[in-house]
Amino acid sequence: MDIATRVWNHKWRIDPIVRSLIDTDFYKLLMCQSVFRNKPDTQVTFSLINRSKSIRLADLIDEGELREQLDHIRSLSLTRGESTWLRGNTFYGKRQMFRPDFMEWFEGLRLPDYHLEKRDGQYELTFEGSWPEVMMWEVPALAVLMELRGRAVLNHMAKFELQVLYARAMTKLWQKVEALRQIDNLRIADFGTRRRHSYLWQDWCVQAMIEGLGEKFVGTSNCLIAMKRDIEAIGTNAHELPMVYAALAETDAELAQAPYQVLADWHEEHSGNLRIILPDTYGTEGFLKHAPDWLAGWTGIRIDSGDPAAGAEAAIRWWQDRGEDPTRKMIIFSDGLDVDKIAELQAQFAGRCRPSFGWGTLLTNDFRGLTPDDALAPFSLVCKAVSANGRPTVKLSDNPNKAMGPQDEIDRYKRVFDVGQQQRMDVVV
Amino acid sequence: MDIATRVWNHKWRIDPIVRSLIDTDFYKLLMCQSVFRNKPDTQVTFSLINRSKSIRLADLIDEGELREQLDHIRSLSLTRGESTWLRGNTFYGKRQMFRPDFMEWFEGLRLPDYHLEKRDGQYELTFEGSWPEVMMWEVPALAVLMELRGRAVLNHMAKFELQVLYARAMTKLWQKVEALRQIDNLRIADFGTRRRHSYLWQDWCVQAMIEGLGEKFVGTSNCLIAMKRDIEAIGTNAHELPMVYAALAETDAELAQAPYQVLADWHEEHSGNLRIILPDTYGTEGFLKHAPDWLAGWTGIRIDSGDPAAGAEAAIRWWQDRGEDPTRKMIIFSDGLDVDKIAELQAQFAGRCRPSFGWGTLLTNDFRGLTPDDALAPFSLVCKAVSANGRPTVKLSDNPNKAMGPQDEIDRYKRVFDVGQQQRMDVVV
Repeated sequence: MDIATRVWNHKWRIDPIVRSLIDTDFYKLLMCQSVFRNKPDTQVTFSLINRSKSIRLADLIDEGELREQLDHIRSLSLTRGESTWLRGNTFYGKRQMFRPDFMEWFEGLRLPDYHLEKRDGQYELTFEGSWPEVMMWEVPALAVLMELRGRAVLNHMAKFELQVLYARAMTKLWQKVEALRQIDNLRIADFGTRRRHSYLWQDWCVQAMIEGLGEKFVGTSNCLIAMKRDIEAIGTNAHELPMVYAALAETDAELAQAPYQVLADWHEEHSGNLRIILPDTYGTEGFLKHAPDWLAGWTGIRIDSGDPAAGAEAAIRWWQDRGEDPTRKMIIFSDGLDVDKIAELQAQFAGRCRPSFGWGTLLTNDFRGLTPDDALAPFSLVCKAVSANGRPTVKLSDNPNKAMGPQDEIDRYKRVFDVGQQQRMDVVV
Repeated sequence: MDIATRVWNHKWRIDPIVRSLIDTDFYKLLMCQSVFRNKPDTQVTFSLINRSKSIRLADLIDEGELREQLDHIRSLSLTRGESTWLRGNTFYGKRQMFRPDFMEWFEGLRLPDYHLEKRDGQYELTFEGSWPEVMMWEVPALAVLMELRGRAVLNHMAKFELQVLYARAMTKLWQKVEALRQIDNLRIADFGTRRRHSYLWQDWCVQAMIEGLGEKFVGTSNCLIAMKRDIEAIGTNAHELPMVYAALAETDAELAQAPYQVLADWHEEHSGNLRIILPDTYGTEGFLKHAPDWLAGWTGIRIDSGDPAAGAEAAIRWWQDRGEDPTRKMIIFSDGLDVDKIAELQAQFAGRCRPSFGWGTLLTNDFRGLTPDDALAPFSLVCKAVSANGRPTVKLSDNPNKAMGPQDEIDRYKRVFDVGQQQRMDVVV
């Protein structure tokens, strides 16, 4: 390393975890553009929720360090190169996916302030403001907390212990890649930004997938890595759209229509492989039953909670009922995947639909079993919209353990969306 | 990396495997000084011997590349820093271990020419000239062949395959370090230069031992790494001394005395922990039986062939017979060691003597099981004195599979040294 580089590195006050506004999931940008167009003035609150209570983040992570990292993210703005890439690159086969008015707004964006305090060994971290701005906090905030928790553990390790830790993690990931390579017609993408071990590790994992899986690896959800490694940026939409639309509904009738209104807005903006239904926000069964016919014409569905095989079977039956050919439909599995589950789902659904996999935490953060007390095992941290224009949001999902919102509102949503008995499943990541 | 470094690196015609004359075993320098003093005009031939015939080196390694590497070694001379370190450093507690006249000679040394040809899928590689010069070829020649064979395999691997290969090797080595750490009162050194996977890998292994074993790791036989990592350089003497002394003997009576004459010369020059007997050149049993009493006063013994436990038991009985206290004697095990054998020998001999371990090939080159067809598994390559002043050398050792020399000379040596039935043992490394 040359002297200038070394001196430059010394100038960093900290070692920043997130160094770019596009070190985030591609679907955030797609959703942000949609929100910027359709609901720009909505005021929202996003909040950190640690579903793994046993991980006492406030005991592990120094508050000063956390503030430094969050402050650093607030200092970021889109670089010229990033802007050029977003404006000029082809996404899902389409040029100028991002409209000039959105790009101009994005170039001027600085993330809004945050509110942080400690309570009961956990951090309360909330972001308030206009929806298009606040929503951009979700992924970097999660990545910062995941990586600071990792650093807290790594700080106690000696130099060669660390080298061997990463050697073991590489070996483990490569074994997964070698197993996935055996699966015919696999289509898999990296969805692991938010709960990754670290940026550098995610970047390594992606490169290993590029070399090890070839055409079977279809891209990454991380825009910065997609740009840097010249691969496809992958992603469509997430629960925050129906959650906020639903919270804004004035009546039960409007509430019942909210999830479809989200997709109607999406339908106007996007076509082809970006038309992917995310049906589970208020229960997949009811969603499909009451869905308008034009939705059955969409390209596919993403299964993000509940038993994935059951969800996929329900989708296939639904398409058949609506006169659609399921073998031409894409089913994207994205919940808690690891190699065995991927192989099992591929075996069950290949030929009956076009299965595809968004592999997250157990791709980019599987350090289970690599430290004596498993102090680096991933855990379930989310950052969700909890209110919109002063009204609480609700998520039911196909797994009651993933539900969120005030109990009276949950009860109301269950009634409106006709949600019956649900199966509880452990949430690991 | 800065531009200048990159351009500088491009200036290398090749990637040199051996880049320093002190990238060799410490005992070579001690022996070289002894030879320089006592037998400077002896003409010797050293020759490469591949005991693992199934590894067809001439098919694996390009002759041009091999010549380039050997030619590069011939271009090396002692640097000022290396000379300063050899002259000024403390070795085995002694300053100025290397005398000024030897250092002056060493500073002017360039390695003599080599003779290389292919035969039956193997390389015939020989070095002829004065003993002090030719002997310095042994370790670098072996290191070059081992590493070129490794490179021939690695050349077919992709970038992340390589990363994962090294990740697996690191994991494997660290598991060994973690196992060794559990052994009370362990004393272990790196003896792995000659059959190492590569210089960088040996350096990594040594650093891992420093961190992982602390005081239990007592040093390395590699002078360059000892200098660079500021640790002890370890080693005493080897078979080449008795082999050449024996070849020079004019009568059977002189021959019988040759191994003791070697140690008499050594006795004059060295004291303390450098007085280590290597008894197996012509059979340990006969050597000890006929040894002069002053030898029993030496600090210890090195067991380098045959069953190590049997050799150590024989040494302990011998010391007892000669009125010495074995619990104060050092027994250095250095033949084909790996973790289980080390643990077993330590358990058997701790308290009965001072066991110590010179861990070689399975420290610095254990890539067994890490490539599909085990193409990187270490093999048994040596480079030995085969003649001295025109007469063939002979080695019997405590394992007939390690014997070498013309059959009629072997028979004569067996008679002179009173060698009976020996147990054949596989030679892996």
